[in-house]
Amino acid sequence: MMNFLHKLQNAKKTNNSYVCVGLDSEFEKLPESVKSYPDPQALFNNLIIEATKDNVCAYKINSAFYECRGADGWKSLENTVKGIPENIPIIVDGKRADIGNTSRKYAQAVYDLLGADAVTVNPYLGLDGIEPFLNYEGKCAFVLCHTSNKSSEDFQRVSLAGGENQLRRDKNAITRLFELVAHKASEWNKIGSCGLVIGANVPEDFTRIIDIAPGLPILVPGIGAQGGDIRAVVERLRGTDFTINSSRGIIFAPGYDDFAEGAHRQTIALKDIINDILANR
Amino acid sequence: MMNFLHKLQNAKKTNNSYVCVGLDSEFEKLPESVKSYPDPQALFNNLIIEATKDNVCAYKINSAFYECRGADGWKSLENTVKGIPENIPIIVDGKRADIGNTSRKYAQAVYDLLGADAVTVNPYLGLDGIEPFLNYEGKCAFVLCHTSNKSSEDFQRVSLAGGENQLRRDKNAITRLFELVAHKASEWNKIGSCGLVIGANVPEDFTRIIDIAPGLPILVPGIGAQGGDIRAVVERLRGTDFTINSSRGIIFAPGYDDFAEGAHRQTIALKDIINDILANR
Repeated sequence: MMNFLHKLQNAKKTNNSYVCVGLDSEFEKLPESVKSYPDPQALFNNLIIEATKDNVCAYKINSAFYECRGADGWKSLENTVKGIPENIPIIVDGKRADIGNTSRKYAQAVYDLLGADAVTVNPYLGLDGIEPFLNYEGKCAFVLCHTSNKSSEDFQRVSLAGGENQLRRDKNAITRLFELVAHKASEWNKIGSCGLVIGANVPEDFTRIIDIAPGLPILVPGIGAQGGDIRAVVERLRGTDFTINSSRGIIFAPGYDDFAEGAHRQTIALKDIINDILANR
Repeated sequence: MMNFLHKLQNAKKTNNSYVCVGLDSEFEKLPESVKSYPDPQALFNNLIIEATKDNVCAYKINSAFYECRGADGWKSLENTVKGIPENIPIIVDGKRADIGNTSRKYAQAVYDLLGADAVTVNPYLGLDGIEPFLNYEGKCAFVLCHTSNKSSEDFQRVSLAGGENQLRRDKNAITRLFELVAHKASEWNKIGSCGLVIGANVPEDFTRIIDIAPGLPILVPGIGAQGGDIRAVVERLRGTDFTINSSRGIIFAPGYDDFAEGAHRQTIALKDIINDILANR
């Protein structure tokens, strides 16, 4: 099995794309045309995958949209994973974390059982809640650093006092919680298995985060339906190992009779926007 | 369907118990005696439930131990829930949180699909990541405030600067992240649907947390296998709506030929210890 970072790099090069398609395939929103089939959710995803696989660098699957259907949902998740070509990495977006012996079980679920290449994890429990994921060599745990929702400011942006803001000097002083998360994630990246999630809503913070945790792969949600400023984000990500995710804006693209055609066109549109920004500095 | 807090209160009174049994029924650790049956995990749990139901105030089910078995695990989870008597509340310990439209799906999974009475949630994404859970009237979302693992100090105990530590004056000044979480949770408790998780490893912090967020129900993990000091914890919880969880120490109690007998005896032992501490001040 290929290392996640190599697989991601190869897919970026082969497809000339930084776009990750998020398969947030809410069952209630599935088109009538797939509903009479045995597994509508997986069929929908497989048609989206077929229509976009030459223009993406990864697929992200948010487990909530499957978990809400119980055992059937888990089967749809498995059937979705099976439909993703071997050369495109799969990120399972579950934002899990628990105490060590329990987190090990979550890691088994996504890596051993499902065969995913990467996951998202929540930092609130600290290192030992994430370590079971980090210990999988060749995989990648993207730690939530700054999320794309409005309430991210409740805790992620609080100002720190005491010793924490002395961890780094000068321009990289740690002053906010999300910066401390970036700093710790950088320390945790011992075998190249740690990345960061940074929402597209805070382009002004990207440069600082990248300075604090240089070299970590970055997964960016919040483009499209969530309204992040793509130009401001991409300008700051230049030169990093970044991946831009779009979910609803691609899989439920409005204005198309055929959802697969819509997904195809929206994926190319986003890919071109990113590549144009990178080409013109 | 009865309100969670009433159900918890009634179970505490009827069974004279503050003990919650955690069904962390790791498949690999199940005894040989259940392994030849169709659903060993649910059978094991149902036998534990039968042996303990007159001495507990709640059951907590950690989703990781089921999720790691995929669709089969979800069915074991469903079969476990079905075996819990109507008068004992069920807490699903999933520590979930995501952006709003996604968290709604997680809330549907535990409340609408599974029929749980309460959940645990992770605060890192802030209010809108938890709100879909809080909006279920008569249910309860226990927000992770201070967890029982060693690395809880990585972020939960960092000192805050700026405006945050001015939120409360005098003895209730907010100086650490877990205190800010308690403060916010108290604000979020508009319809009585918010609680706190506080690990048994930090008895010295219980009094401050209770002062910051008075009246919130408290779920305490970290007793038993994790080694928390039960006396120090219970002394400080006196007068609050608290629930003490023990998982491995009860369901995999060492030294018994019959695991159900072991669970029965260990549950009563823990119940008696807590009641003795409360009776002798």
